[in-house]
Amino acid sequence: MTWIDIDRTSGIPLYRQIYEQFRKKILQGEMQCGEQLPSTRELASYLQVSRNIIVEAYEQLLAEGFIEGRHGSGTYVAEGIYLERLDHEWVIPCNPAADSEKEHGDIINFRHGIPALDLFPRRLWGQLAKQIYNDAADATFGYGQPEGCHELRVVLARYLLKTRGVICDPEQLIITTGATQALSLIAKLLHTPGSEVIVEDPITHEIHTIFSLPGTTLQPVPVDQYGLRTDLLPINKKAGFVYVTPSHQFPLGGVLPIQRRVQLIQYARSAGSYIVEDDYDSEFRYESPPISSLQGLDPDRVIYIGTFSKNLLPALRMGYIILPHSLIERGRSLKWLTDLHTPSLEQLILARFIDEGHLDRHIAKMKKVYRRRRDCLIRSLTQYFADQVTIHGHSTGLHLVAEFSGLVFTSAMLQRIEQAGVKVYPVEIHAIQKDKQQNRIIMGYGNVTEEEIAEGVRRLRLVITR
Amino acid sequence: MTWIDIDRTSGIPLYRQIYEQFRKKILQGEMQCGEQLPSTRELASYLQVSRNIIVEAYEQLLAEGFIEGRHGSGTYVAEGIYLERLDHEWVIPCNPAADSEKEHGDIINFRHGIPALDLFPRRLWGQLAKQIYNDAADATFGYGQPEGCHELRVVLARYLLKTRGVICDPEQLIITTGATQALSLIAKLLHTPGSEVIVEDPITHEIHTIFSLPGTTLQPVPVDQYGLRTDLLPINKKAGFVYVTPSHQFPLGGVLPIQRRVQLIQYARSAGSYIVEDDYDSEFRYESPPISSLQGLDPDRVIYIGTFSKNLLPALRMGYIILPHSLIERGRSLKWLTDLHTPSLEQLILARFIDEGHLDRHIAKMKKVYRRRRDCLIRSLTQYFADQVTIHGHSTGLHLVAEFSGLVFTSAMLQRIEQAGVKVYPVEIHAIQKDKQQNRIIMGYGNVTEEEIAEGVRRLRLVITR
Repeated sequence: MTWIDIDRTSGIPLYRQIYEQFRKKILQGEMQCGEQLPSTRELASYLQVSRNIIVEAYEQLLAEGFIEGRHGSGTYVAEGIYLERLDHEWVIPCNPAADSEKEHGDIINFRHGIPALDLFPRRLWGQLAKQIYNDAADATFGYGQPEGCHELRVVLARYLLKTRGVICDPEQLIITTGATQALSLIAKLLHTPGSEVIVEDPITHEIHTIFSLPGTTLQPVPVDQYGLRTDLLPINKKAGFVYVTPSHQFPLGGVLPIQRRVQLIQYARSAGSYIVEDDYDSEFRYESPPISSLQGLDPDRVIYIGTFSKNLLPALRMGYIILPHSLIERGRSLKWLTDLHTPSLEQLILARFIDEGHLDRHIAKMKKVYRRRRDCLIRSLTQYFADQVTIHGHSTGLHLVAEFSGLVFTSAMLQRIEQAGVKVYPVEIHAIQKDKQQNRIIMGYGNVTEEEIAEGVRRLRLVITR
Repeated sequence: MTWIDIDRTSGIPLYRQIYEQFRKKILQGEMQCGEQLPSTRELASYLQVSRNIIVEAYEQLLAEGFIEGRHGSGTYVAEGIYLERLDHEWVIPCNPAADSEKEHGDIINFRHGIPALDLFPRRLWGQLAKQIYNDAADATFGYGQPEGCHELRVVLARYLLKTRGVICDPEQLIITTGATQALSLIAKLLHTPGSEVIVEDPITHEIHTIFSLPGTTLQPVPVDQYGLRTDLLPINKKAGFVYVTPSHQFPLGGVLPIQRRVQLIQYARSAGSYIVEDDYDSEFRYESPPISSLQGLDPDRVIYIGTFSKNLLPALRMGYIILPHSLIERGRSLKWLTDLHTPSLEQLILARFIDEGHLDRHIAKMKKVYRRRRDCLIRSLTQYFADQVTIHGHSTGLHLVAEFSGLVFTSAMLQRIEQAGVKVYPVEIHAIQKDKQQNRIIMGYGNVTEEEIAEGVRRLRLVITR
């Protein structure tokens, strides 16, 4: 019986160590069918442990069918358990692998789409979370509905009408795990094999991938400084849907004028297509109130997508879709089969946050912060680059586009920029038709301070010489 | 100028009311291209409002392109905005529609898969939530990684090794929005057109739908009281994967013996298939410690799915997948394109909850509660139905199956049962091969008290007579 070892310092319960060694011996064929195990008394005395520990290990082996007890005559290895190649050891994992995404401390990162993370009202939110966990009805802790919590949908419908001119009934809302899930649900919802999807070019690379379901062709339409070139919409095409970012084109930043909005809706009406309106950051409009939604012009034809990632917090993963009535049922069932529903308690926290006016106040406060950051970025770019730089898409949102005359942002150039301690994002990677955006970069200013902005542009100047 | 109305009692800002009326008139063609608007001074005096309000409304119309200012000569309707059929009114939604899922107060619901919602440690969790929101690094509030928070994955890997014999590195874990998302990701991950998926029969109806991707055939294999009949696994089939619930077959409740586990792994090895192990409620094993996972027998071939919906809280929507190394990269990218990642802060709360030992304590406590409820259910069934009832699958989990000799649970019968104030769930709806499970019902005992259980079975007796 020298073959059972125990290690009292390992932290693994003794019964588990004993169980595990028998299990391995049986699976590897070292102990074979019919072989008798030592009695619990015998083994306990041998290992100098309490007999209960051996009994517990044997019970586990018995429960799992490794061994069987013959009445009155001991315990034996059961039949049919030999498994070749059981070569895995029990190792306590301890790999606190440094997160490869963690940034070098001194990089100034103009990443777009990130709000000021240090200004999120974390104490207030934590307080609300505590309240909600204390107050919520028991049933809230169970499974919910695929469309999300009624409380949030009611509050959100009112909020969207007030702030965005979005016309919807709470019934039309589906709460999603961020806008990305909204997009992937819509791609599936409107997918018919052989269909076309019209997208703006440039457009985020991820959306490009999400919409490219088997059997779908993407049909890019160029954008200019006002957004989608509606005059270039393909004629005689049967598009499943047209995807647009009319409030602040991503990445170029144009705001679609009402004339093009009307043309787009007329186009969709005559083609029998839906329009998917992605309204990701329009609350931060600096020169006037946010532009009314496209959805308000034709609620039966426009599917509206919104997110709380930009006006509140990316980590919250909270977004929503507004569906025309005809798509509600299928939309809900698709959401149910994807992940049942988005976490409930966070929805209730958000509902209370909006209902008590905190979201309005947060947005009003952040708008001032972002306007100062934007102005600082524009000022710095102008100071360091004068007429070498042209700025686009700065009326709204958390990023702008800087175009440098006579420059090409090659990967070598971008690498040199990063070595100088600053990170910027080329427009070109988002372009479907290549080679037209090479002198443009996206600069997000949501999560960098004014000091960082000034210093970042100074560093950029060191690399980009005339 | 009689045609602009304002309503000071409506709660809608005045500038918005004015903006909205002009907007509608222009879109509907009531005001046409080139028509002049009243001056701001004129309209302010007419409506008896501050001139700033009119200026704000006009600025909004100007920003959206509805009107244009000709230098020095007033404001005019812009070109190309007429849109037919703008027939939607601005209605403040106020439809607190009674949730159709809300149950009649007096129904005793033996719904399966629901833990005791009133015993969730809500105060402790709320306290932890508040702490985490206060303490988390700013970066945590931004976008995370598709696989989820490193903190949770490290804690979870240790926990799973200790309690379930699951062998994994934190790198292999992907945190998902519940087990349902895990299943739908896996279905996509292992999908190849024309492939077969082997499933247990019966199996939950939803999993059936999730796995039925275009081009996939489901191949059902019957289960008996020990789970999957591995001797009936189809020979010469090239299955993409085999889906099993070995710790507690759903719904019938069998625990797969080690011999069948070995057979299953040998089968998968020779067929080149993966095994998907869904381990949804095995922590609640009442006669001995939880059975070791199938995953521990062959970590390169078994994909393990777990959830916190049964041992903690459904509303949390927190689950996970453990992938073999070869599938990690594609798994992460699929999760990213689905919803980027699961909400981060809840992951950190859960990590701390596990790390501080609260999960262990909660499970130990709940195991006692559930065992009492299970025993009460068995006692009540035996008391009221004696040998008319046979009970299956009660060793583990939050439900058992009751089989009534000589009975068929038709929909009429189920309706009568519900009218008597009790809800039970027929096994038959989960069966792929029909007509074999008609005398069996699933009875969940997780979220019903002992008093409710006794009363529920008494009511059942009133309908089911000998």
